[in-house]
Amino acid sequence: MRCEVVAIGTELLLGQIVDTNSSWIGEQLALVGIDSLFQVKVGDNFDRMELTIRHALDRSDAVICCGGLGPTQDDITREVIASIMGVKLNRDEAIVEKIRMGFESRGRVMAENNKRQADIPEGAAPIAQMPGTAPGLVCPIGDKVIYAVPGVPHEMRTMMEGTILPDLQRRSGQTAVIRSRVLRTWGNSESGLAERLGDRIEELDRLGNPTLAFQASGIEGIKVRITAKSPDENSAESILSAEEGLIRSMLGDVIFGIDEESMETVVLNMLGERGMSLAIAEGLTGGVMASRLSEIDQRMAIFRGGTVGTEIENHDLGGEAAASAAATQARQSFGTDVGIAVATARPQDEQPRATVYVCLDINGEAYTQTVSLPGDRNRFRNYAVINALNFLRRTLMHGRSDTLPPFR
Amino acid sequence: MRCEVVAIGTELLLGQIVDTNSSWIGEQLALVGIDSLFQVKVGDNFDRMELTIRHALDRSDAVICCGGLGPTQDDITREVIASIMGVKLNRDEAIVEKIRMGFESRGRVMAENNKRQADIPEGAAPIAQMPGTAPGLVCPIGDKVIYAVPGVPHEMRTMMEGTILPDLQRRSGQTAVIRSRVLRTWGNSESGLAERLGDRIEELDRLGNPTLAFQASGIEGIKVRITAKSPDENSAESILSAEEGLIRSMLGDVIFGIDEESMETVVLNMLGERGMSLAIAEGLTGGVMASRLSEIDQRMAIFRGGTVGTEIENHDLGGEAAASAAATQARQSFGTDVGIAVATARPQDEQPRATVYVCLDINGEAYTQTVSLPGDRNRFRNYAVINALNFLRRTLMHGRSDTLPPFR
Repeated sequence: MRCEVVAIGTELLLGQIVDTNSSWIGEQLALVGIDSLFQVKVGDNFDRMELTIRHALDRSDAVICCGGLGPTQDDITREVIASIMGVKLNRDEAIVEKIRMGFESRGRVMAENNKRQADIPEGAAPIAQMPGTAPGLVCPIGDKVIYAVPGVPHEMRTMMEGTILPDLQRRSGQTAVIRSRVLRTWGNSESGLAERLGDRIEELDRLGNPTLAFQASGIEGIKVRITAKSPDENSAESILSAEEGLIRSMLGDVIFGIDEESMETVVLNMLGERGMSLAIAEGLTGGVMASRLSEIDQRMAIFRGGTVGTEIENHDLGGEAAASAAATQARQSFGTDVGIAVATARPQDEQPRATVYVCLDINGEAYTQTVSLPGDRNRFRNYAVINALNFLRRTLMHGRSDTLPPFR
Repeated sequence: MRCEVVAIGTELLLGQIVDTNSSWIGEQLALVGIDSLFQVKVGDNFDRMELTIRHALDRSDAVICCGGLGPTQDDITREVIASIMGVKLNRDEAIVEKIRMGFESRGRVMAENNKRQADIPEGAAPIAQMPGTAPGLVCPIGDKVIYAVPGVPHEMRTMMEGTILPDLQRRSGQTAVIRSRVLRTWGNSESGLAERLGDRIEELDRLGNPTLAFQASGIEGIKVRITAKSPDENSAESILSAEEGLIRSMLGDVIFGIDEESMETVVLNMLGERGMSLAIAEGLTGGVMASRLSEIDQRMAIFRGGTVGTEIENHDLGGEAAASAAATQARQSFGTDVGIAVATARPQDEQPRATVYVCLDINGEAYTQTVSLPGDRNRFRNYAVINALNFLRRTLMHGRSDTLPPFR
């Protein structure tokens, strides 16, 4: 089963928008075992769109067209698909009504040209999910199919998950349900994880289901993706849960979260569950920790605030002692349960690593960690922040522990 | 003149990397007046790469292949192009030597497989610029041409600017040099700018050179791009400077910088030129201002530090008075020349705008601004921060001014 992606929009070719939709679709197709061998960008031009979609349909079983479903004269995906199908467009009054209600629920009035969005090629069907005002389309052509989805990412994703991926799986004769779960890790390299999971990886290579894959996600750690194939949803989830349990038993607290959870989400949740609040003191990380925490806790209910300034680094006490004092001061001045301070020995431009002191004050009890982190100028600050939050996470889990392995 | 872009790499189709190279190349081609009507992604597969590049060459005058020039067995762009040209690959010993020296200068030893990168199709020429270890290629085919560049963005860009764009312009018979300059604006809508520049836009429509284009860059304001065409570099730059002067006289200090300058870069430069230092107090912007400033001023030489916390918003004095006190306190406790405080009346989830108080203390002199900003939950914090820095910028330029127009 082959499925091609055609991203439509002159603004994509001009570089005004980066096409992230095709990448996301490609990832989803790969997860359900469908090959996506070509992805094409084309502008809002009838002939070139028709040429591109026909060509894609020649060499693939399915084509997903992304974009060109809006209400303006530029938006001609509907017309192009009708031409390829050799049919005319019919206005679907039920869809007109759905669009009108969508506008009304947002306190707005539907414009006349929005009615164009309800034009459906004869023989095609609208996609049931419609999170915006543009209906998606399923357009069968012989034993092949063209799907059309809007270019707005969240609308596209809803339609992909709700209709297109299941339909593609059905068409590919896959009766299996394919589900995956991502375990987020921090503090081990990919080769380090592979070594620790070596026996299980070998075993799964023989068994074939579930499968494990590593995926570096830059500064945010390494993802371990478990993918399970099973006759139904429930049994797929059971396989994932069993495998997750096994991998957790092998990797321990190197795993900090699952799927889309970031380190700061996890730490804020842990604090919230314990009814604890947090204040911070940052040096050369310069507000990165504060901004990452407040991005999640936007009302600053758990993360109450902090200070940013290089006096931690320049303090007479130096490094660890200064950071320790700063953690306590943060906790006291914001009246929180936890204070955390990060002090950085200034990295030199050409120096590959820098020393970072992380100090915690949890209800008056002090915990400290000294680590050497990769000192790349641009990524350094985020490394230091994630590492510090990870130290807080592990201390909340284990209390004092001198056996915490260092950052590798 | 038509030029197609082929991005090569299975990881692009699987969504592990987003293809930003094609977008950048498309933008550069548009700037020099070359059409890029299709952009394709294809995996590291000989037959599909050959098919895709041949197809691109059929309908275009030039093809830029991006990726697949590395040293591993997956990297087969050289072989595919040689096959299309119907020639064999010859190892260029001078290039082998250049690669070896590149490794040595980084204190590393060249591996045997890196020699593959010096294989050049007969009749092709290596690109003079070689910032990494992969040489780029110019491969003429009849009166058409295939270029090959590495997928590493900065290597690709250096080769585009140094060789490919000038070569494409020469091939297209363009003797003109095309140069552009971006004026960064903040505080006006696109339609507001168009109105203020209306007369000049009409005039330029008649003259044809230079041209003006607006480009929204999301939360960072609207860009006004001036593009000039001229027989040589110097006269193109003169046209740009003359037009910049004219537009500055029409827009005034709505323009905060040029090309890649961000608001925080501009403000830090202004403070630096005046020998002034800065401390801040943030409420619900939660460290975003600190992290943006310290991203530029990584050693925190001008931006000395600040506090983050909701006591500004919750202060008994309320809004402006609380922010004013916080600005003075920031200046005093960090011993700086300037203190800036941002207090936000908590935006409600469904409320479209929020009130923000910005207060400055410049050497003991107070300046305040109250604005209503678009309250979109995710973009709000950056809006508030850029707006506050813009208030500081304009106050440093003009001193006290009650005639500053409000945010539109």
